[in-house]
Order: sequence, then structure tokens, then C-alpha cells
Amino acid sequence: MPQPLLYSAFVMNTASHILHGLWRRDDGQQLDFNALALWVELVKTLERGRFDVIFFADVHGVYGPPDASFRRPIKAGLQIPSNDPAVILSALASHTEHLGLAITSSIVQDHPFSFARKLSTLDHASQGRIAWNIVTNGLANGARNFGHDDLTPHDERYAWAEEYMEVVYKLWEGSWDDGALLADRTRGVHADPDKVHRINHRGPRYRVEGPHLVTPSPQRTPLLFQAGSSPAGMDFAARHAEAVFLMAPAPALAAQAIAAIRARLTAYGRAADAIKFFQGLSFIIGSTEAEVARRDRELDEAIDHEAMISHLGGVMGIDLEVDALDRPIDTLHTEGAQSLLDWVRASVHGRVPTVRDIGLLASRSSRVSGTPEGIADQLAVWQAAGIAGINVINAVIPGSYIEFIEHLMPVLRRRGLAATGYQPGSLRRKLFGHDRLQAPHPAAAWRGAFSTSHPP
Amino acid sequence: MPQPLLYSAFVMNTASHILHGLWRRDDGQQLDFNALALWVELVKTLERGRFDVIFFADVHGVYGPPDASFRRPIKAGLQIPSNDPAVILSALASHTEHLGLAITSSIVQDHPFSFARKLSTLDHASQGRIAWNIVTNGLANGARNFGHDDLTPHDERYAWAEEYMEVVYKLWEGSWDDGALLADRTRGVHADPDKVHRINHRGPRYRVEGPHLVTPSPQRTPLLFQAGSSPAGMDFAARHAEAVFLMAPAPALAAQAIAAIRARLTAYGRAADAIKFFQGLSFIIGSTEAEVARRDRELDEAIDHEAMISHLGGVMGIDLEVDALDRPIDTLHTEGAQSLLDWVRASVHGRVPTVRDIGLLASRSSRVSGTPEGIADQLAVWQAAGIAGINVINAVIPGSYIEFIEHLMPVLRRRGLAATGYQPGSLRRKLFGHDRLQAPHPAAAWRGAFSTSHPP
Repeated sequence: MPQPLLYSAFVMNTASHILHGLWRRDDGQQLDFNALALWVELVKTLERGRFDVIFFADVHGVYGPPDASFRRPIKAGLQIPSNDPAVILSALASHTEHLGLAITSSIVQDHPFSFARKLSTLDHASQGRIAWNIVTNGLANGARNFGHDDLTPHDERYAWAEEYMEVVYKLWEGSWDDGALLADRTRGVHADPDKVHRINHRGPRYRVEGPHLVTPSPQRTPLLFQAGSSPAGMDFAARHAEAVFLMAPAPALAAQAIAAIRARLTAYGRAADAIKFFQGLSFIIGSTEAEVARRDRELDEAIDHEAMISHLGGVMGIDLEVDALDRPIDTLHTEGAQSLLDWVRASVHGRVPTVRDIGLLASRSSRVSGTPEGIADQLAVWQAAGIAGINVINAVIPGSYIEFIEHLMPVLRRRGLAATGYQPGSLRRKLFGHDRLQAPHPAAAWRGAFSTSHPP
Repeated sequence: MPQPLLYSAFVMNTASHILHGLWRRDDGQQLDFNALALWVELVKTLERGRFDVIFFADVHGVYGPPDASFRRPIKAGLQIPSNDPAVILSALASHTEHLGLAITSSIVQDHPFSFARKLSTLDHASQGRIAWNIVTNGLANGARNFGHDDLTPHDERYAWAEEYMEVVYKLWEGSWDDGALLADRTRGVHADPDKVHRINHRGPRYRVEGPHLVTPSPQRTPLLFQAGSSPAGMDFAARHAEAVFLMAPAPALAAQAIAAIRARLTAYGRAADAIKFFQGLSFIIGSTEAEVARRDRELDEAIDHEAMISHLGGVMGIDLEVDALDRPIDTLHTEGAQSLLDWVRASVHGRVPTVRDIGLLASRSSRVSGTPEGIADQLAVWQAAGIAGINVINAVIPGSYIEFIEHLMPVLRRRGLAATGYQPGSLRRKLFGHDRLQAPHPAAAWRGAFSTSHPP
């Protein structure tokens, strides 16, 4: 029997996350994302269905070039409006017991002192179930929402992220020694002042005195996700991440990305299995091949292809001239889109590829379609490529997850590709067998670093 | 019959908020403040007891002078550790229907773009029950946690706060016009791009492009609390606050503070009743005068007087030389504490006042002791002084609130000093009869200000 895969529900506190246009369907409730009840019911469903994690993507601005009007994303609901995911996690924690709670947060949006306090509070509140997907910032509008003129250059963003990590590690791991909290009612001593330390961080971007305001939470540092695919991003992942989120177009390409990061892991002295890789996939499940084909077609027709293309262009920082969907792609004068257009040309056969095909392929690139047994076969192939977990993209909320749980999970369980029960303890313990980061991870080096027996 | 008073539970996400040392008692659960369950049970109790609001105080640093070791607050648990209150509100919202949810947040701790998004998300999640207690920053360590060398000078902090308010008002009130959200499934239009605006704020401290990432929540701007008592603070309250929190030592002094702020309200063109004043009080309830006296003495003995004095000194920014509790106060060489010491001298009769008396008086200054009927009489006096609400300070959580609800509320209700049921709707509607701020409040001026029919 294979190892069970991990399952994460990949969502966003918005109406249109990845598969755009589906909020228009009657069978989805994602239009109601403002309502806590939608998310509370979803996490109860996920926990009943033995998902490991709910993972909230996030943005801190709107996709588009500096002079964009944002008309298209606003009309499409393309990740705008998008609500703060961090502040709804405690509600989700209070209605679940085991489900991991992961949020994306950019280094541009919160000061690390506030951010560290927020996540420590949540890790306490959830009894150690918090994960953080570390992102720098790829949104020009996001930069301008926070006082910057434009995007910080790519590699400089990673230097910034390194300092950000150093500050939060000092707060999470170093400021309070183990045993600092006494809560001694008889002696009247709440904490031992010799074991609570200022961090006195002074770096290029931040000066932070400390101490951290929150006692060590079950995980201290939350479980660390990351998704960088550039060389600087992979280096960053190899230093810091415990889970890496991929959107590889095929298992072989996932295997390449995994090998590239694993080589870097070794260079940093970390074990080759120190990172678990999650692949983002959406699912079309049918009981027969004919039903699968029909549902595939229905999804293709329900997708908002213009929004798919706008999103892709926004992520790539290019304008894909989405206004004429039937225009042949060979007439596009788009700088920086050659590899994308080559991929479209290679994927379309027997006719001239058009702009619409970009959107169609974008919506299909992460899709796994089949009968439950057929999908299990495909997941086994992803697993053989090195994938440890699936980030399950939805078409509709909660329907896509209910379908996954009711129709796919029983087969995955029978095949040994899904676990049957939860392990006890924190999210890190469930995934790695221990609550706290261990050497040689850089966070672990700060534990005890400010204590008198370990002068800094 | 009088108007019913409003009741707010004044708490903090910490072990020792105002009445210090009581975490040492067996009958309190505030040591467990990391656990969501403590707060969820408390809000359910408060809603059953017909409280209007739970109000979380907050800090973003430790009390003490620049060279302080923080040993004393750490030992006493004096507001350290203290957890982020904002991120637990959604859990509290999901277990209540009517209770207002108020948090303190300083302009130093969050960028206004993130802060506005956070509170809009919470106002949606709670269906319009969020209040914000606006604070600048009085903590030197707090300043140094966020990259500042020391406290920003007092009046400059209020100029900073004015800009902060302008940014969040632009986001909350101006960025999305009413009617911008269409969610039109048939036409496939999620929002009307002509009604979603960038704010393009450029000021001395902030440059924020926008648009706001969250649609207008039930209240748009959360209900605004403030507690400044300096001239600049009272001016700020008169411009922005809808509720002001007082800790007046006596009803006559509350009346003076209220008159001073009301005079300023009129100067800003706002109605004299545009602000509701909340007085902070703790309660000793007994069924006989003898029981009241016994419980008063028991509380005096249970208090950690050193921590009371440290806290007072921390708030005042002075060192009250707390190490010798039995030392006569006349031997203190404390700059800036004359009015405090005069108050202690005036309050102690027939013996030499000592340092301990400072702590004792600090713990008693907000205390109302009596039988339920006697306390109702005293609250009627506070009401006659202009107080609209009581911020109920606890000795123990949840015990103090259970006692208040079981032993005092029935009498207050009979006397017409407490309401019997909840009004429907948002917190602002419950308090003022409408959901959104209205002219001449400065927030209202931004509603529609960016729309094409109202060029900026």
C-alpha cells in the first residue's frame, strides 16, 4: 500500500479564486463569502471528510498593470472583493478539532511584530493548527496600497523576506524560553523575567525591541508553506519551507521542480524529505467516462475565459489583450508571453489557436477528470512524482468538496491514498511527528538564543 | 422610568488587565486566556445576560520607562503576555447574535490599508457588530517594537491619528459606492467598475492607492470608541468618536469631562448627544451591607498592590518606586506625581499614607460596592451625571460577569436601568438608530466622494 496523500482545500475569501465565472452558477455559494456561516459549514464538512488543511490564498491588491483601470477584475469578481482570511480563522478553529488552518500573508501587508503576535494568538486558539504561506509581493497595486511607488525588485523582495523571517523567528522562538510561563498562583509569579527576552532586532528594514507579547504557542513558529518557483524563490523555500505548493502542468514537471528544490535543501543541510510538496488540482468526477466527458464540457462552458486570461496576465505581469477572444494568438504582440503562447500552440490541434484557448487551457491545466478509480490512478502518478499532498481547487463551494468527499475519498481510502483518521496533536505533529521546528531549520537556532546560558 | 444604561464587559486578552493579582485566585479562569473556549463561553453568558458589548483593551508593548527591565510586569502578568484580540472576534461572532464586539487598536500597530480590510471583514462576519477603540500610542516599548526610537510627541500622535482616520474613512466610506456590488449571475457582472474607486491618498505618513478590497459592510465604518482625556485627545474624540470611555473617580468629575467634550462637539457642528459616554466601574455585590464590607476587604487583600502601582506608574510614565510598600509617600522623590500623591493624602485619614495606599486606592477608585438596590442607586447617580453606559471591569472571568448578571441585572431591569431585550440590527443601529455614520461626522463626507457625480 502507498502512503496516504494529504488533502488541502484550496480556497480564498472571495467570490472568484482560480476557476473564474463559476460564482454565476446556481449550485455554488461562494458569492456569500462575507458570511461566516459559509466557512463554518465548509470546515465542518472538510473535517467530517478527513481533509488535512483548509488553505486560504490571499492578495493585498488587485491584478493589473500600473495604469490599469481594474475594470475587468472588478466586473469579474476576480479576487476583488477579497476579505482578510486571518480574522475568520478563530471561528473556523472553534468549530473543528483537527483541520489545519493555513493562510497566505505577504511581508508587505503586516509589520512583523503585529504579524507574529497575530499568528501566535491563532496558534494558541487553534491548539497548534496554524500554517502560514509566506509570500513576498507580486502585485504592483498591492505595493502602492502600502506606500511603495511600485514593486520592489524581485531579488530584493527575497532579501526583505529573509529579514522578515529573522524577526518573526526571534519573536516566536527566542523571546520566551521554554519554562518561562509559570502561572504560579501560590508564589504569585506569572512568568519568570529571566526567561523572557527582548530581541533588539536591528536590520535594514526593521527595528524591533520585543519581548514578544504572546507565550510560546503549541507550534511556536506556524507550519511554513511557500510557493516560489524562481531561483530566489526556490532558495527561500529550501531554507524556510516545510510545505511547498506547486501548480505543475504535469507530474513530470512537478518531479523536476521537486528535484530542483531538494538539491537546494541538501545544500542548506536539511533532509531531502524536510519539505512536503502539494500539487494544486481541480477535479471532475463521474461514474462513467461518458459522464466525465459531459461534465468536462459543462465546466468548459461555465468558465469565464476572459477572467481566466486576465488572471493569468495579471500573475505574469503582462497584458494578454483579452478583448477579442476569437483572435488568433499569432496576432498578439505580447512581450514576455512566448512560452505561454508556445504551450497553447502545442496544445491545440487541427485549428488556429485563439485567445480563448489561453483561458480554456488555463482552466484545464490543473484539472483531473475521471471516474473515482481513474482519478485514484492519476493521483498515484502524482504521488510517484514526489507529491505528498493535493491542494484541491474548487469549482463551487461547498459542492466541489462535498463531491470529493462523497465520491472520491472512499475510493482513495480503499486504495491507501487517503488516511482513515486523524493523528492527535498539532498540525506539524500530524505532518512531521513533532510540534516544533528542529535544527538545522533556521527557526530552531533562535530557540534559547537570548537566554543567559546562550548569549546572543 | 429612566433610560436603560448600556453595559459593556471590559476585558483584555491577558491574565491581568486592571485589577491585578486576581489571576492567583482559584475562582477565576483568566489564566486560561489562550483558550478560545474561555472567551466563547463568556460571550454566550454575556448575551444571555443582555450585555450590549464585549470591549477588549489592548497594548502593543510592555509598560515601563525606556531603560526598564520589564521584570515587574512580567512577574505580575501585568498585561504581558497579551494576545491579539482582533483575531478571536470571529469565533465570538459565530457564537452570538447581538453582542457588540469592540477592540482597541493603535495607529502604530497596523498599516491603515490592512486595518481597514481586517475590520471590514469582521463587520461582515459579525453582521455589523464591530467597534474600534482608536488609540494613538502611549507605550515607549510599543513604539520601539515598530521601528520608532521612542514615543512620538503627544500632539504629533494626534496629527498622525487624523491622517490614519482619513485613510480608513476613504477606504470604508468612499472606495465602494452604494450599489457597486451587483452579484448579477445572469449578466455575469460581479461589481460595477464605475462605482469602485481608488482613493489615491497621499499624506505625510501614508500613500495608499486603493481600491478597498472589501465591499461595504453593514456599518461601513465600525462604531468608533475613544478615550483621550488630554485637550488634543478630547478634540479628537469630538471630531471622531461615537462613544467615549471614561475612568472618572466620581460622577461629578465624569460630568466635567462630558461637558468639556460636549462643548467641543458643538464646535465641530455635531449634536451634543452624538457621543455616548461609558464609565469604567468594578462591582462588589452583597445581599447585606455586612457581606459587602467583608467582600470589599477580601478584594483589598487579594489585589497585587505592587502591580497596581506599576501599572499606574506605567500609564503615567513615572517610576513610583514600588519596592517598599510600607514607605511613607512623603519620602517619594517622584517627578510628575504630585496630583496623584495629593489624592492619596486626601483619601487616607488618621495615619501616614504609604506607597501601598497608592495601589489600594487605584484598585478602589473604580469600585462600586453595595447591595443590588444600593448599586442601582449609585448607577442612577452616574447616569444623572451624563453617563450612558457602564464598562464593567472584572475581578475574575467569568465569575464577575455571572454575578453581575445573576444578582444585579434583575434589579437594574426592575429599576429601568437595564434593557430587557435586544434591538435588531447593527451595533450602531442598536445604539443610535442607524447603520452608518451621518453628516456632519467626517466619515460621512467620504461616502460618494470619489464617485463620478462627486469628483474628489
